[in-house]
Amino acid sequence: MGEHAKSVVLAARPAGKPHPSDFRIEEGPVPEPGPGRFLARTIWLSLDPYMRGRMDDARSYAPAAEVGGAMPGECVAEVVASRHPDWRPGEIVVGPLGWTTHAVSDGTGMRRVDPAVAPVSTALGVLGMPGHAAWVGLNEIAGARAGETIVVSAATGAVGSVVGQLARLQGLTAIGVAGGPEKCAWAEAELGYAACLDHSAAPDAAALAAEIAAAAPGGVDVYYDNVGGKTLEAVLPAMNPHGRVALCGTIAWHSGQGVAEAMPLPLAWRAILTRRLTVRGFIVFDHAASLPRFLAEMAPLVKSGKVVWRESIAEGLEAAPEAFLRLLDGGNFGKQLVRVGPEPR
Amino acid sequence: MGEHAKSVVLAARPAGKPHPSDFRIEEGPVPEPGPGRFLARTIWLSLDPYMRGRMDDARSYAPAAEVGGAMPGECVAEVVASRHPDWRPGEIVVGPLGWTTHAVSDGTGMRRVDPAVAPVSTALGVLGMPGHAAWVGLNEIAGARAGETIVVSAATGAVGSVVGQLARLQGLTAIGVAGGPEKCAWAEAELGYAACLDHSAAPDAAALAAEIAAAAPGGVDVYYDNVGGKTLEAVLPAMNPHGRVALCGTIAWHSGQGVAEAMPLPLAWRAILTRRLTVRGFIVFDHAASLPRFLAEMAPLVKSGKVVWRESIAEGLEAAPEAFLRLLDGGNFGKQLVRVGPEPR
Repeated sequence: MGEHAKSVVLAARPAGKPHPSDFRIEEGPVPEPGPGRFLARTIWLSLDPYMRGRMDDARSYAPAAEVGGAMPGECVAEVVASRHPDWRPGEIVVGPLGWTTHAVSDGTGMRRVDPAVAPVSTALGVLGMPGHAAWVGLNEIAGARAGETIVVSAATGAVGSVVGQLARLQGLTAIGVAGGPEKCAWAEAELGYAACLDHSAAPDAAALAAEIAAAAPGGVDVYYDNVGGKTLEAVLPAMNPHGRVALCGTIAWHSGQGVAEAMPLPLAWRAILTRRLTVRGFIVFDHAASLPRFLAEMAPLVKSGKVVWRESIAEGLEAAPEAFLRLLDGGNFGKQLVRVGPEPR
Repeated sequence: MGEHAKSVVLAARPAGKPHPSDFRIEEGPVPEPGPGRFLARTIWLSLDPYMRGRMDDARSYAPAAEVGGAMPGECVAEVVASRHPDWRPGEIVVGPLGWTTHAVSDGTGMRRVDPAVAPVSTALGVLGMPGHAAWVGLNEIAGARAGETIVVSAATGAVGSVVGQLARLQGLTAIGVAGGPEKCAWAEAELGYAACLDHSAAPDAAALAAEIAAAAPGGVDVYYDNVGGKTLEAVLPAMNPHGRVALCGTIAWHSGQGVAEAMPLPLAWRAILTRRLTVRGFIVFDHAASLPRFLAEMAPLVKSGKVVWRESIAEGLEAAPEAFLRLLDGGNFGKQLVRVGPEPR
């Protein structure tokens, strides 16, 4: 740690696929916390697909990032100075500090992390927003029930890896879809997926659909959709009557990719109608009220090793843009993190 | 009535848009009811958009019509002979007899119609399957609540006209979308729509979207979708967060029409995600259990004139194919019926 703070700011709004030049590193003095605020030093920065949406100037569920402003994001950080009565130096916290080495906070959106439960980085993954999204989508959005069959796309990602494990623990048969044999092997060996299909090996949606039909001979009751794209197209024909789609992300179409080749809306709409499907979009940030309940349920599963996780780590804040661009194209394996600073001894 | 029975059979599966030559009239002797069966003489045949799907050899929620077999459909009929203890000659019944002048039934799917409540033709409309679909979609599928704003497509059709009236009676603001100034005028004057927008006057979805935004300045909470197409595309941008889409039909895309020009699936999927919408497809035939509850609620509204209806009547079974083809293109005004035989004196 020097005496300077660094941030990654949005240099330009991407037209289509983002490039490294859309980001810029800015340096400045480490900020001082005013009254009722504390200074946090970032240890881990989380990179998540939703950040792509924030780079656009489009109406969405959250305000866009501003050009010239720090990229938004969740961090695990150490409180290093405090003028806030509730937050003490040395505490490990998690919350929306942004892509930055240091940030001043009034505590909004922040919570403490207990290092005794698991490595603190898990507060950004299996015990954080992605894990919570998995739990909410599976239980509250899809209403998954024991005995059902679920398909999970991005099956080894930060969200999908938790969906698969929770589904199996809850008595569902989970079928994963992931990119590449290495991910699929891990999904089957460690995450409890009954099968994991490699979409990168399927020449088209029809080929993937045939694999799904073979892996789920009784049909699919729940589809946990993290990606849209070819996988969505392949799953819809396998959906059972009254099936549910929990729609968590559309990363396959990020930055307008694949939009022209996507299946026609009328075919999807017709499938929703004739199969009487329920498709429900959700944003985990709407579900803050259930976070304590999720953590109470999940922490023992993580601590006991019943739920496992995996991380892709980029080294140093400067590496964040490249790591984010890789994430958008599925180059991560498990939860994508950036190591911004050292863990406290 | 002569001594012959007539039926309209499916002569050929249409490739794309159906033609009159896809249907054929067949004549034969009036059938005799065997033991446990009765003979019914059709008075009214109902024409409904779902019948287009039955003409295709595609997996759907119901078996396809067979080539050379009678077209499926609901009729109001008079029992004229019976060897079934529960059904007596002279009774008026409604049920799935098909496009035919005479049919033998064992009572499956049939119910009695009380001519004292309303004209018996309403058992195929406001007091039948279309009215039930309106009620189910509004209440059970969309969970519409007083104070909300609903958009209804095919707003003056057999289903939409009931949705609009029930929505208004339940304290919603209803905005209709229909084809042509005459339909829109009726929708506003008689059905209680706060506004009705003429999609045929809007050059494209964006123009219709602007009209919807102006008619619903507080946004749209519920979309009752009977059509898909341009109207769906125009409504999605106006949907409020956590809005619901009750998906009842996709007639705008019947026979593959407009599929190539439809909005891309990724845009719709993205709207469902970022607005956290729930899109739920449903088929009224799944909801038979609630039919008595619906009828108990609806019959007094019809009898007292609080709910009105309108019928388009084609004369004679031979006119059914042309009337059906007109219906697919929105040529009906209100519930489309075929007068197959006289009402009893």
